Amino acid sequence: MNNQHIMRTFDEELRFLTNQIGSMGGYAERMVEQAVAALVGADLGLARKVVEDDVFLDEKEREIGEKAVIIIARRQPMAADLREIVGAIRISGDLERIGDLGKNIAKRAVAITEARQPTRLFRGLSALSDLALTQLKEVLDAYASRSAEKIGFVRDRDEEIDAMYTSLFRELLAYMMEDPRNITACTHLIFCAKNIERIGDHATNIAETVHHIITGTQLPSERPKEDSSHRVVAPSGDGSKD
Amino acid sequence: MNNQHIMRTFDEELRFLTNQIGSMGGYAERMVEQAVAALVGADLGLARKVVEDDVFLDEKEREIGEKAVIIIARRQPMAADLREIVGAIRISGDLERIGDLGKNIAKRAVAITEARQPTRLFRGLSALSDLALTQLKEVLDAYASRSAEKIGFVRDRDEEIDAMYTSLFRELLAYMMEDPRNITACTHLIFCAKNIERIGDHATNIAETVHHIITGTQLPSERPKEDSSHRVVAPSGDGSKD
Repeated sequence: MNNQHIMRTFDEELRFLTNQIGSMGGYAERMVEQAVAALVGADLGLARKVVEDDVFLDEKEREIGEKAVIIIARRQPMAADLREIVGAIRISGDLERIGDLGKNIAKRAVAITEARQPTRLFRGLSALSDLALTQLKEVLDAYASRSAEKIGFVRDRDEEIDAMYTSLFRELLAYMMEDPRNITACTHLIFCAKNIERIGDHATNIAETVHHIITGTQLPSERPKEDSSHRVVAPSGDGSKD
Repeated sequence: MNNQHIMRTFDEELRFLTNQIGSMGGYAERMVEQAVAALVGADLGLARKVVEDDVFLDEKEREIGEKAVIIIARRQPMAADLREIVGAIRISGDLERIGDLGKNIAKRAVAITEARQPTRLFRGLSALSDLALTQLKEVLDAYASRSAEKIGFVRDRDEEIDAMYTSLFRELLAYMMEDPRNITACTHLIFCAKNIERIGDHATNIAETVHHIITGTQLPSERPKEDSSHRVVAPSGDGSKD
C-alpha cells in the first residue's frame, strides 16, 4: 500500500512536469505571435508587453529543471520514466529559447517602427512566422497527446521554413541595394527572420525529444539543421528561391 | 571498504565529467579561433575543417548528458555533488552552442570570401572575437581551478563585448550605406559579429554556473543579458559608440 502510494505520487510528479511544459508552450507561442504582430502593426505597447513577459519562461525553465533533478535523485527512474523527465528538461530549454527569440523580435520592433518602411517588407516575415508557429503548435500537440505519428511532418516543414528564410534573406538584401534608406530596417528584419527560422529549429528539437520520449529511439539523423542563407552571395533581386 | 570503493568510484565519475568539460572547452575555443581566422584570411580549407569539427562537440554533449543522468539516478547525490553534475550538463550545453556559432561563422566565410571586401571591414570583428575568446578562456580556467575570484571580471567584460558589438553593428551599417556593393558581405559580417557576441553570453552563462557550483548561490541578477544593437536606428557613420 505504501508502495502504491509512492507510485501514485510519482505519476503525479510526471503529470506535473507535463502540465508545466504545456503551460510554457502556450506562453511561448503567444509571445512569438504577439512579437510579430507588434512588429508588423508598429504596436510599441504590445512590443513592451512581450519583452516583460519573457521572465515567466525563464522562471518556469528553472523550476522544471530543479524539480526534474529532485525527481531523478529521489526516484531513480528507469527507461520510459527517465526519458519523460530528461525530455521535460530539454523541452523546457527549447521553449525558454523560443521566448528569448520572441523577446528579441519585440525589441527590434521599436527600431523598425522608427525607421518606418513600406509594408511589402513585412509580408514575407508574417508568412514565415505563420509557418513556424504552426510547426510549434503541432509539436506541442504531439507532446501533449504522446503521438509519434504527428511528428512525421515536422521535419519536412522545417526544410520549408529554411527555404522560405533563405528566400526572404535574399529579398531583404535586394531591398537594401535598391534604396539605402531601407538598410537599417531591413537589417533588423533579417535578424527577425533569422530568429523565426531558429524558432522552427527549436520546434524540430522538441519533435525529436518527443519522438525519443515515446519510442526510446532517436529519429534518424541527416536532418538539415541549418538554412542556407550563409551561402547567399548576391541577391537575385526578386526574392525567388535558388 | 565496499563503501569506500563506491566513494572512490564516485569521485572518479565526477573527475571524468570535469575532464570531459575541459576537453570540450579547449575544442570550442579552437573552433572559434579558427573560424575567425578562416574568415579574415579567406582560408576556405580552414573554414571547411571547422564545419566538420563541430560534430565532436555535439557527441560530447550527448555523452556528458547521458553519463550525468546515470550518475544522478544511481548515486542520488546531494548538495555540492549534485551541483557539480547538473553544472556539467549546463556547461556542456553552452560549449556545444559555442561550437555551433563557430561553425556558422566558418560557413559564412565562404560567402564573404566570394564577395571580397576591403580589410577594414574585418578589423572590428577580430577585436571583438579576441575579447570573447579571452572571456571564454578565463571562465574555463575558473571552472578547472574552481576559483570563484576569477569570475568577478567576467560580467564587466560581457558589457564591454556588448558595447563593442553595438558599435560594430553601427559601423557595418554605415559601410552598407556608403556603397551598396558592401551590403552582402556586411550583412554576413553582422551575423558573424552577433555570433561572437552570443559566444560572450555563453561564456557569462558558464561563469554563472561555475559560481553556483562553487558557492551554492546564484550571482545577483540584473545582469545585462543583451547588447543594444536592436535599438540602432540610423548609423552615425563613424562607427563610434553612442
